[in-house]
Amino acid sequence: MALIVQKYGGTSVADLDCIKLVALRVKALKEQGHKIAVVVSAMAGFTDQLVDWVSEIHNHNDLKEYDSVLSSGEQITAGLLALYLQKLGISSRSWLGWQIPFETNDSYSSARITNVISERLNKAIQSGEIPVVAGFQGISSENRITTLGRGGSDTSAVALAASIGADRCDICTDVEGVFTADPRIVTGAKKIDKITYEEMLEMASQGAKVLQTRSVEMAMKHHVPLQVLSSFSDLPGTFVVDEENIVEQEILSGVTYSREEAKITILNMADKPGVAAALFGPLAEASINVDMIVQNVSSDGKSTDMTFTVPRNDLDKALSVIDSDAINLEFERIESDAYVAKISVIGMGMRSHAGVASKMFNALGDKGINIQVISTSEIKISVLVSEEYTELAVRALHTAYGLDAATK
Amino acid sequence: MALIVQKYGGTSVADLDCIKLVALRVKALKEQGHKIAVVVSAMAGFTDQLVDWVSEIHNHNDLKEYDSVLSSGEQITAGLLALYLQKLGISSRSWLGWQIPFETNDSYSSARITNVISERLNKAIQSGEIPVVAGFQGISSENRITTLGRGGSDTSAVALAASIGADRCDICTDVEGVFTADPRIVTGAKKIDKITYEEMLEMASQGAKVLQTRSVEMAMKHHVPLQVLSSFSDLPGTFVVDEENIVEQEILSGVTYSREEAKITILNMADKPGVAAALFGPLAEASINVDMIVQNVSSDGKSTDMTFTVPRNDLDKALSVIDSDAINLEFERIESDAYVAKISVIGMGMRSHAGVASKMFNALGDKGINIQVISTSEIKISVLVSEEYTELAVRALHTAYGLDAATK
Repeated sequence: MALIVQKYGGTSVADLDCIKLVALRVKALKEQGHKIAVVVSAMAGFTDQLVDWVSEIHNHNDLKEYDSVLSSGEQITAGLLALYLQKLGISSRSWLGWQIPFETNDSYSSARITNVISERLNKAIQSGEIPVVAGFQGISSENRITTLGRGGSDTSAVALAASIGADRCDICTDVEGVFTADPRIVTGAKKIDKITYEEMLEMASQGAKVLQTRSVEMAMKHHVPLQVLSSFSDLPGTFVVDEENIVEQEILSGVTYSREEAKITILNMADKPGVAAALFGPLAEASINVDMIVQNVSSDGKSTDMTFTVPRNDLDKALSVIDSDAINLEFERIESDAYVAKISVIGMGMRSHAGVASKMFNALGDKGINIQVISTSEIKISVLVSEEYTELAVRALHTAYGLDAATK
Repeated sequence: MALIVQKYGGTSVADLDCIKLVALRVKALKEQGHKIAVVVSAMAGFTDQLVDWVSEIHNHNDLKEYDSVLSSGEQITAGLLALYLQKLGISSRSWLGWQIPFETNDSYSSARITNVISERLNKAIQSGEIPVVAGFQGISSENRITTLGRGGSDTSAVALAASIGADRCDICTDVEGVFTADPRIVTGAKKIDKITYEEMLEMASQGAKVLQTRSVEMAMKHHVPLQVLSSFSDLPGTFVVDEENIVEQEILSGVTYSREEAKITILNMADKPGVAAALFGPLAEASINVDMIVQNVSSDGKSTDMTFTVPRNDLDKALSVIDSDAINLEFERIESDAYVAKISVIGMGMRSHAGVASKMFNALGDKGINIQVISTSEIKISVLVSEEYTELAVRALHTAYGLDAATK
């Protein structure tokens, strides 16, 4: 008998039929003798409708009202699922963020959970009741509703699992798990059976959208075993675990891509101490996340070229920050390109295997793909290429690293 | 400068355009120098959708979940209106039932407000902020969301007005006020300028649906002047006030009808002490509201006929209660008729004017309408007639009492 938190995303609770299926799944799990808490998202599309309404009224909206409006979606799903479970003869009730409570900081629309007061909830679980928790939401110190940002229900589930010491947190979604590459692009992509938190973190932040990055960080910190699995099948999914729980480590876990970045190059920038701070300080103040940064050595000791990437949505904002008086920088000119893709290969195994990077560069070179920027970490290599090569690059790398499933 | 609570119903906030109009109306009122709090319903149709979902899952639903799901509609409207007001440069925020809080008893789905803790809200109003309160909802002693029953936002508004000592509570809706009769039936029906709480109470409970009965009771108890007016025009509406504020009292305020009752007759019932209690006790226990009751004197001292009305929706339930073992009653047989209408004439003036009742009976008799049951109070006469005569009876009475507007 295990203590399990299950989170069901928007497509898993898209309508009453889906919610009914979820209730039946939860019931089946309970009948195996487990203690369960469920965390739900809003019905697919519902939150988008609310966001549209809010945005139509007010571009620079009051995030407190935004959060209060948006949190209603999860409130509805939680009540409906609790009713279905009751219909199946299971004792159940809904819990809203402020009822548990999920205490958060005051960063409305992207709040962070500071504390989960789960004693009452845990008592209910231990008595055999199944709480259905509205995900994505919490309560601030000023007694107002906060939301945790897109995908925040994953974080709600992991935070709850950590708080009650769950044996496992299932993230039930519309895909069968984490794949070695996007199956829409790579036909030979395989479901990964086990992956480490570190790899999952890189996968999530490098473009695999199956889990919110923050939820993986939290799971890693609290050693909560995660399972990413489909709500619509009975197959096991991908387990995200500590490294010591993986017996045989693959060199590479997967290949990801992201089209969400844009490249900015500042040419002939005066090369003197403090220029990086002068450039990236104001960008950070404008809440623009800079990702890859490359600075060439200056050949004449006087000027250099600096290339970096920013979220594509923030490109115009970034350019105007650089062009503003806020930045005290001498340079010749700026070039920018919104049509780039970041391709990454990720794997714990690359720490102990030589030649992983050169294999990547060769594979891309063989296809005539020009590498614009390279960035590496201990378990990841990312390159920036022209966006039109995205699919070609992903498929080439998937094959080069031997990840393709054996064709029958 | 006055302190005003304005409540906007579902049709007044049906979509973003309507909500924008409401924001503009509230702004115009503020510019006249008033202090304002707004109470809102859910967008028209939204609550019905939620009720449909809940009902589809579970007929005998858990009312706590029902309330948690249903309350989301007002939560959304409150946030959206607060955002519109902010866009117009007005300081505003939404307040949910549990945030104020509106404390209620634990009768989920038809909870009664026990206490409104309005200090913080009042402080905000006095500082010039416009709070937008989610109507229809409160919080129970066990920290769960309650709802106040259909039309409950009227009650929210009046309770708030009473709590903060408002000078007036405006009920803004899709009609221009309270009419002498349903304008869809009587073309000469006129808007009433002023009406007493007592009359309004009878009008509401006898079929005029413009205000929830409970809200009128509460306004009367706390002497909160009400105005029923249209959200879509700038004309004054109907003021509901204490009797002493009405200089010239009309004999009759209006004619109402209700098709929501059914008639039950128990024939040749043994006539002995305690039969009424034996009959109506079990009906009350089954939560069936009995309205009109007529018992004939027994000619032989042994048996009598008893006629009474129940809500039409409860007819089958009432018949099965009477037929059950719960009732220890001797009678020959039961007759029932779901196709009856209750026609009422209402007016404070009838206390001091003779002949009001006979005028009613004559007017109906002249049109060949048979009166089945008569029930009177100090300021109201109701009769039960066959449903097919509804419109004819209302028009005949409206004319007989001289209520028709002068035709041009």
